[in-house]
Amino acid sequence: MNVPNPKITTGGLPASRKIYVAGEMHTGIRVPMREIATHPTAAEPPLPVYDSSGPYTDPDILTDIREGLAPLRSEWIEARGDVERYAGRDVTAADNGFVSGERLVPEFPQRVAPRRGTGAAAPTQLAYARAGVITAEMEYVAIRENQLRALSPCHGSRDGVRDGEDFGANIPDYVTPEFVRAEIAAGRAIIPANINHPELEPMIIGRNFKVKINANMGTSAVTSSMEEEVDKLVWAIRWGADTVMDLSTGRNIHNTREWIIRNSPVPIGTVPIYQALEKVGGIAEDLTWEVFRDTLIEQAEQGVDYFTIHAGVRLHMVPMTVNRVTGIVSRGGSIMAKWCLHHHRESFLYEHFEEICEICRRYDVSFSLGDGLRPGSIADANDAAQFAELETLGELTKIAWAKDCQVMIEGPGHVAMHKIKENMDKQLECCHEAPFYTLGPLTTDIAPGYDHITSGIGAAMIGWFGCAMLCYVTPKEHLGLPDRDDVKTGVITYKIAAHAADLAKGLPGAQRRDDALSRARFEFRWEDQFNLSLDPETAQSFHDETLPKEAHKVAHFCSMCGPKFCSMRISHDIRAEAQKEGFEAMAAKFREGGELYVPVAKPAGERR
Amino acid sequence: MNVPNPKITTGGLPASRKIYVAGEMHTGIRVPMREIATHPTAAEPPLPVYDSSGPYTDPDILTDIREGLAPLRSEWIEARGDVERYAGRDVTAADNGFVSGERLVPEFPQRVAPRRGTGAAAPTQLAYARAGVITAEMEYVAIRENQLRALSPCHGSRDGVRDGEDFGANIPDYVTPEFVRAEIAAGRAIIPANINHPELEPMIIGRNFKVKINANMGTSAVTSSMEEEVDKLVWAIRWGADTVMDLSTGRNIHNTREWIIRNSPVPIGTVPIYQALEKVGGIAEDLTWEVFRDTLIEQAEQGVDYFTIHAGVRLHMVPMTVNRVTGIVSRGGSIMAKWCLHHHRESFLYEHFEEICEICRRYDVSFSLGDGLRPGSIADANDAAQFAELETLGELTKIAWAKDCQVMIEGPGHVAMHKIKENMDKQLECCHEAPFYTLGPLTTDIAPGYDHITSGIGAAMIGWFGCAMLCYVTPKEHLGLPDRDDVKTGVITYKIAAHAADLAKGLPGAQRRDDALSRARFEFRWEDQFNLSLDPETAQSFHDETLPKEAHKVAHFCSMCGPKFCSMRISHDIRAEAQKEGFEAMAAKFREGGELYVPVAKPAGERR
Repeated sequence: MNVPNPKITTGGLPASRKIYVAGEMHTGIRVPMREIATHPTAAEPPLPVYDSSGPYTDPDILTDIREGLAPLRSEWIEARGDVERYAGRDVTAADNGFVSGERLVPEFPQRVAPRRGTGAAAPTQLAYARAGVITAEMEYVAIRENQLRALSPCHGSRDGVRDGEDFGANIPDYVTPEFVRAEIAAGRAIIPANINHPELEPMIIGRNFKVKINANMGTSAVTSSMEEEVDKLVWAIRWGADTVMDLSTGRNIHNTREWIIRNSPVPIGTVPIYQALEKVGGIAEDLTWEVFRDTLIEQAEQGVDYFTIHAGVRLHMVPMTVNRVTGIVSRGGSIMAKWCLHHHRESFLYEHFEEICEICRRYDVSFSLGDGLRPGSIADANDAAQFAELETLGELTKIAWAKDCQVMIEGPGHVAMHKIKENMDKQLECCHEAPFYTLGPLTTDIAPGYDHITSGIGAAMIGWFGCAMLCYVTPKEHLGLPDRDDVKTGVITYKIAAHAADLAKGLPGAQRRDDALSRARFEFRWEDQFNLSLDPETAQSFHDETLPKEAHKVAHFCSMCGPKFCSMRISHDIRAEAQKEGFEAMAAKFREGGELYVPVAKPAGERR
Repeated sequence: MNVPNPKITTGGLPASRKIYVAGEMHTGIRVPMREIATHPTAAEPPLPVYDSSGPYTDPDILTDIREGLAPLRSEWIEARGDVERYAGRDVTAADNGFVSGERLVPEFPQRVAPRRGTGAAAPTQLAYARAGVITAEMEYVAIRENQLRALSPCHGSRDGVRDGEDFGANIPDYVTPEFVRAEIAAGRAIIPANINHPELEPMIIGRNFKVKINANMGTSAVTSSMEEEVDKLVWAIRWGADTVMDLSTGRNIHNTREWIIRNSPVPIGTVPIYQALEKVGGIAEDLTWEVFRDTLIEQAEQGVDYFTIHAGVRLHMVPMTVNRVTGIVSRGGSIMAKWCLHHHRESFLYEHFEEICEICRRYDVSFSLGDGLRPGSIADANDAAQFAELETLGELTKIAWAKDCQVMIEGPGHVAMHKIKENMDKQLECCHEAPFYTLGPLTTDIAPGYDHITSGIGAAMIGWFGCAMLCYVTPKEHLGLPDRDDVKTGVITYKIAAHAADLAKGLPGAQRRDDALSRARFEFRWEDQFNLSLDPETAQSFHDETLPKEAHKVAHFCSMCGPKFCSMRISHDIRAEAQKEGFEAMAAKFREGGELYVPVAKPAGERR
């Protein structure tokens, strides 16, 4: 077959099949899931798992990045009757960093006119939710969250009792479209879904749903092909990224972003101040509201689904950071702090926040209110600057909500374990239960090169405590730019953290995958063990290193212990013996204390 | 220089110097530490860090594995006057798996007669502690735990207030030898230190001290050289393993273990049932008390510092595991369960536990009471079998204590985050505060290939909650045998977990390293950042990938953001500006609400 984009990573994962579940209220909906088949000897139905990878893993769909993905939401958006197409803003030379000629990345070929809300209409999921409307997006995410759990024999938790500690969350047994609507209406969850990103497969971010993860990417200023740039996205979602932030700086930002959004089935987030800064030559104090506003519209028209806005950095907070060990470590935060100081006034983000809301409202761009003063070291965690900003973010949340805008709140950073819960508790309180979206947190500063792990620990914990989305950290954090392997390692580490959090908060159905994998492990179904894992390739290659032969994939012993010392093999012997001997009867005899029950001698004289 | 053992990894870590701190009560003591120097511009004293790597990282000491390490404890042991040398047990062909000729690993050349307690004497640290004696070992570990913290300008926590949550532990500001004695006397801490392992640099395991980590190793049945086997140990301690368990099975176990112990500065633990099983041809039901007893004496004479003994697996508990998802996953536990079932009686470990204590007492071998019924999957965590065994371990602890034996307790396993604390709390309660030593726990089953991470999360948490030692898990767990890189990854991951736990429990001085590294980061002292990290090589190589030039090691910007977007550089600008402008005055002006302070508009109508 002639593949249109040979550099794009396509194809299914091992033993997996893509399935699509239809909607009931909105019959045009087809929610993708991945089913992992197990060996016939298991006599188990295939396991459905959440699938963020988009059409790229469906062998029946031939994607071509020059065409972009199918605009599955277009009909839904149009059907609501509150948006209009318009000419849109002209692309300027500044949008691409003033490059021209051969160095200019080509425009995406299929450009269409953008949509915006008609007149005063708010085409946002929040506005619909408040109006009592269950949108197609809401039903979509409800189906997606459930992962067919009602249809599975093992849909509940052990003994039907919820096994978990949710710290006052309100996680339902089953996610209904109405539950989704109510959560969005309450501001406790968001569906980041710009009306100009119809290619999106909707997903939900909220404390009462599956914990999500974000991966960051940056495009290269000079690149040989758009395939390579799009594949960074495709690679991250293949391993499970639920959203991707495009943190590009430099040249060709506009055109490259267009290629990415048109080919992205996941929400794309950006930090618009980065591009605005490029437009003013990198001089923070030269930033203006006008340049920023223009950048917001530019990106909203392209279809960016959420904006990180550092409007919480206020002038009076900047001095609070001066005696920190690591000052301000957020790029956006430091840019705004510098601007505030230079001009001796509040930032234009804060002053014009309502106007920013007006823009976001018109395209349904969600807010990700940035934590510009997050701690960059263990020493600076939970300090006055950090919490002062958090309170401001809470005020801004209410303003955005009043404009029908969806909001989530960004969080730290570097925080020792005993201070993590305070972050979550304060965020819930200050920000009125708007979803929390944290970077890590990193639980120690002493392991550059391993910060996916220092932060994975904190991420798992804060996810358990109620954080809705975890921004990944790669092994290269603090040191350099992540390559393909680093991105995969970061994503898998954060899938682990998110899943550990789901288990701990008692998300119904979460344990199905653990149970299926553990059964495979106990029954020596090696291939099933690999296929059910987060990274089948790595699991299999590690096994091959020790026991390379194909025959060992059915070996009834563990590759570490060998046949003589395999505890699981012995456990099977015990089970067999139990069946033979009438185990329960035998055990009862010993429990009662038969003559074979020999009590251990009591110590002659216990000292304590 | 002619290096005696070219395959042994020797030499110091970057910018590091080995120092030795003398004792005050026991003047012969020289406690090793590593000092990491920083760049002169930092104007900081070198940072002392805990150092488990032994003489191998001291360039002034020429080690030769054919000689073994210097027996630094011999004088201390002899001076106490309660031990005798004796001929010792003859090595039998069974000890080495009946190999002979070329396939037999040569005996260690410097074999000396073993020591044992004279008559009824108990030459154990517990007996001395109870008698009010502060041994050299106790003073040694006190000095070692403090890491010169009283001498450092930043010895305390922020503002002199203890920053941490210790869940009722009793962590002192400063570790005195008397505190060590009292903790050992109370059974809350142990110093695993067989009188036949005089080469040992003593270390302490207890909830009120720094969290420790263990690495496992296994020798190869057929090996080209003893250097390779010893280097497995040297490699693990180079990166920070505090103890090493030799989990070898197969041939040549006895002779190889001798080489390892003679060259080990850290406590060596074993699971004696493994060797006993080899002696009876691998047939669990053929095990006898006599074979086991003989193996204990064999290993105690060699100098093994702690024995994992699965005496808590009792006959009536075996049926409790039959309906588990993964049955019994402890090798020792499954061997004993099988024996119990086959013979329809309590295990010889349980029946003869007092005699086992008599042996351990005579050599000061510490107990590591094995959790033979630990859960092997999320589904099996915290079940009846696991907790029934834990209660028995508590009974056995009292018996061992009555015999003056030191005890720690092994723990799980696979446990979701919300069930981890229950493990710690129950262990403290059932086992009377004997130190807890856990494997992980793994917080999910779905990531084979990444179980250092799934378990690192749980390890950090249980360390915070009070666990004294964390047994590492490598990326190869469940899949294969760890190679050199896996061992390093496992050790570094567990150093992260242990250190994150130390920070969270508020161990005084723990944050010094984080602070030093964060200062280096903020001041763009790249080399210092690498050198202060847990793995300088990896940190530097990651930085080199993105910014390879030497000049970039003094670059005043981060390799990820580039100069224009570097938040830390901007923070420096802000700090400079603050100094110029009189920051505090300026800030106060804005706090009071000068004319430049523009309040954000209130939302027209807040909906919620």
